[in-house]
Amino acid sequence: MEKNFTQFIEELIQQIGEKHVYTDEERREAYNFDGTDYRYLPEAVVEPATTEQISKLMKLATKYKIAVIPRGTGTGLSGGALATNGGVILSFLKMNKIIEIDEVNMTARVQPGLINLHLHEALAEKGLYYPPDPASYDTSSIGGNIAEDAGGPHCYKYGTTRDYILGMEVVLPNGEIIRTGVKTRKGVVGYDLNNLIISSEGTLGIVTEAVLRLIPLPQNIMTMLVFFPNIENVIASMTGFSKNRIVPGTMEFMDKACVDLLRGRIQFTIPDETQVLMIIELDGESSEIEKQMETAGEICFENEAFDVFLADSSHKRQGLWDVRRSFREIIKETVKYKRAEDVVVPISKIPELLAGNYAIAEKYDFVSYNYGHLGDGNVHANMTNMVKNDDVIRRGHHAFKEVFELTLNLGGTISGEHGIGITKKPYLGMELSEESIRIQKEIKKIFDPLNILNPGKIFD
Amino acid sequence: MEKNFTQFIEELIQQIGEKHVYTDEERREAYNFDGTDYRYLPEAVVEPATTEQISKLMKLATKYKIAVIPRGTGTGLSGGALATNGGVILSFLKMNKIIEIDEVNMTARVQPGLINLHLHEALAEKGLYYPPDPASYDTSSIGGNIAEDAGGPHCYKYGTTRDYILGMEVVLPNGEIIRTGVKTRKGVVGYDLNNLIISSEGTLGIVTEAVLRLIPLPQNIMTMLVFFPNIENVIASMTGFSKNRIVPGTMEFMDKACVDLLRGRIQFTIPDETQVLMIIELDGESSEIEKQMETAGEICFENEAFDVFLADSSHKRQGLWDVRRSFREIIKETVKYKRAEDVVVPISKIPELLAGNYAIAEKYDFVSYNYGHLGDGNVHANMTNMVKNDDVIRRGHHAFKEVFELTLNLGGTISGEHGIGITKKPYLGMELSEESIRIQKEIKKIFDPLNILNPGKIFD
Repeated sequence: MEKNFTQFIEELIQQIGEKHVYTDEERREAYNFDGTDYRYLPEAVVEPATTEQISKLMKLATKYKIAVIPRGTGTGLSGGALATNGGVILSFLKMNKIIEIDEVNMTARVQPGLINLHLHEALAEKGLYYPPDPASYDTSSIGGNIAEDAGGPHCYKYGTTRDYILGMEVVLPNGEIIRTGVKTRKGVVGYDLNNLIISSEGTLGIVTEAVLRLIPLPQNIMTMLVFFPNIENVIASMTGFSKNRIVPGTMEFMDKACVDLLRGRIQFTIPDETQVLMIIELDGESSEIEKQMETAGEICFENEAFDVFLADSSHKRQGLWDVRRSFREIIKETVKYKRAEDVVVPISKIPELLAGNYAIAEKYDFVSYNYGHLGDGNVHANMTNMVKNDDVIRRGHHAFKEVFELTLNLGGTISGEHGIGITKKPYLGMELSEESIRIQKEIKKIFDPLNILNPGKIFD
Repeated sequence: MEKNFTQFIEELIQQIGEKHVYTDEERREAYNFDGTDYRYLPEAVVEPATTEQISKLMKLATKYKIAVIPRGTGTGLSGGALATNGGVILSFLKMNKIIEIDEVNMTARVQPGLINLHLHEALAEKGLYYPPDPASYDTSSIGGNIAEDAGGPHCYKYGTTRDYILGMEVVLPNGEIIRTGVKTRKGVVGYDLNNLIISSEGTLGIVTEAVLRLIPLPQNIMTMLVFFPNIENVIASMTGFSKNRIVPGTMEFMDKACVDLLRGRIQFTIPDETQVLMIIELDGESSEIEKQMETAGEICFENEAFDVFLADSSHKRQGLWDVRRSFREIIKETVKYKRAEDVVVPISKIPELLAGNYAIAEKYDFVSYNYGHLGDGNVHANMTNMVKNDDVIRRGHHAFKEVFELTLNLGGTISGEHGIGITKKPYLGMELSEESIRIQKEIKKIFDPLNILNPGKIFD
């Protein structure tokens, strides 16, 4: 370690105690990864227990100009929590509590290290619900969800993480502690720093507490699988749903390549000719959703669906979602090279996006898997290969550059929920104008003039 | 006019045409007001027809250092659209169109001058719905709604303006045109400039186009009035609703002073002992909401309600809402002095807030009227007097300072939907820390280094 860094660590241990500061290799290696393939070894790991300790950490980091990288549970898919420039990983392992669930006001106050699933479970006991449910919800933390504005299957009806964060306690890079947003269900006092911090990927401030908005837990859920001959019929069915005022909690899809992988993994027989599988989930009062599901089924049949299948037991439903949530891993197991990006297009443009992805895959010799959140137009586009080498990786870059170009031409955005981090940094200028990036860099400078908080993420 | 200003106007006319630029007294006087009692005469009025004209305006304003104040329809309640420092009012009268309604993607693209009601009407024809509905929705513009993040009765269930703005075209003070947000239903690319511009009260950028998220239009609506002996029972009923997973589209309340004003203005008999009137509106499929309304009624009776009354015709319902929406004016007509502020507290604290407001009113010799959006905890607190003079106005300042202190002590916020503008500027520091305000001022400087866009609003 450099002398500067050694002094920093010594002073940090003095101020917050040695049981919160680690420099041993084992601990550092436990924090060298996230959900990408990249690995970066941090120089130290800090596991604070309080906001005050984080404030002290940042004051010392400012004094010694040390990079600090906030990290939830490392499930991120864009490299946002990697120690790419060395420095200290700030882990929220010890700040993972539910501070309060307020049933009257339907809010919860939580620490950032709390696992999304643990929150869901605690709320369900009280008949309450926090909708954002990224595929990683059983392992990802609320703090990480906030950093990326995580979405998930239920975000079509209910909105993303952003829509449920009323206010936060935030430690700034200079160590100052501020509150953003409110503790109430509404508030418009000053600029919206709350939303600015949300989705800033841990580059502007460190979230140490969040006040969440809750809703009543839906009591009845029905899930239906529908097998379609093509994506156009799926889109037409969705239009039919909205014309009939059916707003599913979830609408997911998988294309043919995915469906072929699915066979044998779920307890349903999939018709051979299936090109697209759609998952529709309705929640609400049972009489209502039964009627709506019947109408939805009719609409699907009118639009050439081969068959519909009701996941009529919670067991079948759970099995289906387990497969859906682990689909990323399932693809990974069957190929050597896999790169996935979470583009979004207007719903009506999904057919064009898929056609384009297949053409791009063919051009660069990939197999393309596409699945995702249909209602949001959020497509997880995968390019895969049975071989992984430098040439394949290079071709992957070219292929995704074309996917992004297509996405933007269709009026879309290059990331719906994974964020920019380091993996999409080269493509940022494709979507945002120079002026927009200039402003964002200036904002970063206001919050973090020394560039010590998660440096090198989103932009340089 | 100063020479500098004369040159600015000459050059502006040259660039965007004289039919968009007015310096005559009549036109200037037509733009000297908003929803507050303040009056400020602008030096000129510009009514552009295109984004490019606004860009040219801002480039010239930069060159000549002229203040530009964007103004929707002047219904704002915090003075945000007043030409407090002279300069030019930028009116969106000629930019009031719906550019596109996209039924498949359930989005609309609109100009900022569009009246909220006109949007509602156009959407209803297609079975679509844009929920934000400030009381001024028949006269206020979408641009103004965005500037303040306007709420409204339906925001309890559906969220505020912010939740429906997917992306925007924005002219910066330097004349550059940027896009914020996305055109899709999701997107996390870079810092959230979209939400930063929303609710910035026209101080960071000029919104020239917005892409709105839409939902299916609820087909059936039921409205119920409930008469309660006290506010505690109202809160208890609300908790009962959520425990039964009843989420009304609207929950409004009026306190006794309001109820007394209401008598004779609505087609319902109000029980004499009524201390609080609650309006509950459910939307959804008719079988469902009938059942829910029955349950809601039972819950209210369990909580000591004197009576419930179903507004069972659209005529009665419309009559009720007309009164509710014009309530601000109704109070105004009956008193000489009236000041209202839109504070928000956690729902469970509403009884304490009301009790406090009554005590403060008594102390300063006012009559306090309280009504508002119960579900959000958003209380429109009015202090009124039959005399208006300097002493009354001064006492009003003191009284509201105490109301704000109480609100903040109860975990609330000093503005739920009206914003800061000029009227709440003196109180900003009561809610926000110095560090938070410092950051916000720095953000203003990035966007507007010359302080020419709506200067003197929110902070100095």
